[in-house]
Amino acid sequence: MLQSSQYSPFRHLLAIKDLNKNQLETIFSMADEYFKGGEIINRPVLKSIKVANLFFEPSTRTRVTFEIAAKSLSADVINLNIDSSSTKKGEGLIDTLQNLEMMGIKIFVIRHSNNGAAHFFARYTKEGNSVINAGDGSHEHPTQALLDMAVLRKYRGDFENMKVAIVGDVLHSRVARSQIHALKILGTKDIRVIAPNTLVPNDIESMGVQFFQSLEEGLNGVNVILCLRLQRERMATGLIPSEKEFFKLYGISSKSLPYADKDALVLHPGPVNRGIEIASDVVDGRQSVILNQVTQGIAVRMAVMTLCQSQSIIPS
Amino acid sequence: MLQSSQYSPFRHLLAIKDLNKNQLETIFSMADEYFKGGEIINRPVLKSIKVANLFFEPSTRTRVTFEIAAKSLSADVINLNIDSSSTKKGEGLIDTLQNLEMMGIKIFVIRHSNNGAAHFFARYTKEGNSVINAGDGSHEHPTQALLDMAVLRKYRGDFENMKVAIVGDVLHSRVARSQIHALKILGTKDIRVIAPNTLVPNDIESMGVQFFQSLEEGLNGVNVILCLRLQRERMATGLIPSEKEFFKLYGISSKSLPYADKDALVLHPGPVNRGIEIASDVVDGRQSVILNQVTQGIAVRMAVMTLCQSQSIIPS
Amino acid sequence: MLQSSQYSPFRHLLAIKDLNKNQLETIFSMADEYFKGGEIINRPVLKSIKVANLFFEPSTRTRVTFEIAAKSLSADVINLNIDSSSTKKGEGLIDTLQNLEMMGIKIFVIRHSNNGAAHFFARYTKEGNSVINAGDGSHEHPTQALLDMAVLRKYRGDFENMKVAIVGDVLHSRVARSQIHALKILGTKDIRVIAPNTLVPNDIESMGVQFFQSLEEGLNGVNVILCLRLQRERMATGLIPSEKEFFKLYGISSKSLPYADKDALVLHPGPVNRGIEIASDVVDGRQSVILNQVTQGIAVRMAVMTLCQSQSIIPS
Repeated sequence: MLQSSQYSPFRHLLAIKDLNKNQLETIFSMADEYFKGGEIINRPVLKSIKVANLFFEPSTRTRVTFEIAAKSLSADVINLNIDSSSTKKGEGLIDTLQNLEMMGIKIFVIRHSNNGAAHFFARYTKEGNSVINAGDGSHEHPTQALLDMAVLRKYRGDFENMKVAIVGDVLHSRVARSQIHALKILGTKDIRVIAPNTLVPNDIESMGVQFFQSLEEGLNGVNVILCLRLQRERMATGLIPSEKEFFKLYGISSKSLPYADKDALVLHPGPVNRGIEIASDVVDGRQSVILNQVTQGIAVRMAVMTLCQSQSIIPS
Repeated sequence: MLQSSQYSPFRHLLAIKDLNKNQLETIFSMADEYFKGGEIINRPVLKSIKVANLFFEPSTRTRVTFEIAAKSLSADVINLNIDSSSTKKGEGLIDTLQNLEMMGIKIFVIRHSNNGAAHFFARYTKEGNSVINAGDGSHEHPTQALLDMAVLRKYRGDFENMKVAIVGDVLHSRVARSQIHALKILGTKDIRVIAPNTLVPNDIESMGVQFFQSLEEGLNGVNVILCLRLQRERMATGLIPSEKEFFKLYGISSKSLPYADKDALVLHPGPVNRGIEIASDVVDGRQSVILNQVTQGIAVRMAVMTLCQSQSIIPS
Repeated sequence: MLQSSQYSPFRHLLAIKDLNKNQLETIFSMADEYFKGGEIINRPVLKSIKVANLFFEPSTRTRVTFEIAAKSLSADVINLNIDSSSTKKGEGLIDTLQNLEMMGIKIFVIRHSNNGAAHFFARYTKEGNSVINAGDGSHEHPTQALLDMAVLRKYRGDFENMKVAIVGDVLHSRVARSQIHALKILGTKDIRVIAPNTLVPNDIESMGVQFFQSLEEGLNGVNVILCLRLQRERMATGLIPSEKEFFKLYGISSKSLPYADKDALVLHPGPVNRGIEIASDVVDGRQSVILNQVTQGIAVRMAVMTLCQSQSIIPS
């Protein structure tokens, strides 16, 4: 499987924006090797490599999938849930990094509320060590976008003629940002963003996407719907009138789903707020690939970890 | 050891009430195989099987014994302590379950404050996956009762002629409910409940047990005393006048212990509140098998996990 | 590597004060075996031995290094972070210990806010089981002092002619107490303590060290500077006027560092408060061995765990 001619390696995974199409394809085909016949295939390619799951923001799903991915590669995983209050009286990010490196950690999976935290980390790592961004502020969440693309590739294939709508709180979504970059790299021309005015960045169209305020207009003709998770915390700030109102205008339901192609796929990064971003029957419906995303997430994270460390583990 | 003729397998362990005598015996004899010469015997029968410890209520002892049991079988354990506040803004139970199944989890050990949570979970699991109830509300805590019975079987043997008193807060105790079911299945005829009026269900005698308000009368002639843990949180609600008062009336002490047979065994699910449910010298005394319960708990949980997955791991 | 003639074994590691020079040398030379060519060497000498990391006080660094050390020896690690509030309503220390022993735990790594907690634990452990003190109140933190000494031995060697200054909050520091004991055992004659009057015990000179209030006088001629971490929580109590003031008078900076020998080594137990106990450029400077301490900490903890269990794992 691991012939070095097959792929373009990289050392860190900080942002989708940094990758080229060849690298994306490399990740997808390695993920295919790790996910066969509906099952994750264990391979001890990271045996005795130490991985730190450094979560400065709480997370269950992403943390657990990284943990399972690492263990499926026989890596040793150290979970570190560091709440920001303790970092205040503790040491800075660089000191944390350097200390963990001295403990032999080679791969740093980092989630942090600050945009650019993973880049900052990467700048200071020792040669041969890797940083994987598991979400930084509202900037990027590259492995989420990669798993979404891996699912689309499996169920649709043709990125160039895909018509994709991203629906929901784009303004605060690191997932949306990573998805848009990934789709553009893969050649998708028709990318749409559907959201209320208050939930898109001002310069959204400069990203090369079309902006729609109307779900009906925006979904017209699309064959992929990428739902975003609504950060219910935003409600307090008045950006969204109410959950009920949001669902009525922007929820994917049996009423709104037919605006899109009749076989349009529905994706969601999870955890789903049923009845808010998406109706319960759509989550469980024929067009949903939401559960497939979860297993794909493990395969993609296995591929990313393998490729980051490929300079160490694969003879050139 | 694992000849399929030897036992009656089951897929989930949700409640003692669902089991028959043959299944209980199967669990006990497999637990014996895992606990020999005072030591837990490791066996890799769940190698590469993923177990999730899903604790929606805090627990140290039960969580750790399940973790050790799973690791002793070479399973991979994922610990998930989910506090209810985060589930409120998060996803529902079924979504959590389905997501973890997509990550390859096969055995779900679940503790939850709602009665029936494990049953609910079990209804939605994929074929071949198992749910083990580690305590649901005030309903059942089947592995606790199983380990208690395994201890009684080892130290007493004859369930039919056993005389058992369950002492303490029966009303709120999932342990008591599971113990009563287990004893009845095993043929014990003389089961007594000793508690103040305020701490027993109204219909307690419909469970086929005798109810005593007086410790002296209730303990008369019994050869097994099952102490319950006093939920000190109950004090606030006025159900118990004071800890001191409770100990005076219902505590097992050098004063009350002689009401029972002189060799009566004393059990407690732990953690013990010394000087409240039970005096310190009784905990450490000749008749106490409280520490033996702990190791037995690992062996029983190993047996339960093995049997739940036996359809997958044992060729029929 | 493990020839029994090479070392003086011990069962627990509770305090440096209990060790003799031969035992310290044994720990250092075994740590050397585990730390070669800048890398930690894995050895499965504790295969299937269960280690509990029992932290009654929060810690990231010490907990993680013990976890990595145990895993590098193929031990099974159970992490138990027990906050004191839950112990209040829970069981006592001895009950916790006895329960964990019944679960098969052999090595107890314990951090607790009470002086003597590890000794208390050790008094009640079953034969063959070991307690390692990972910090008890303001009493001792023996593995920290051992790793500091291991670093000094590597970079300086000659303990007898070493001139060592310990700088900072000696009064509350379990690290300082362990360091002083270790240096005295190793034969160091010139040990100095530099601190404001409010941050040293009254009887400091009875420990056989010289006390200086002036950094300039105290550092004069020393070739080792052991910085202590300032517990910023102390500020509230008025023992220290302000962080700024403290740094000005007692901080190790490019201004104060030249008071010592020009090649004096700088150590710090971490996590560092840059700009409070020590200036940022000194942390990262030529004389700092702070990062080397971290890896040495893993090797030393591996050695301590191995030696504690040597009666079990090495045929005599």
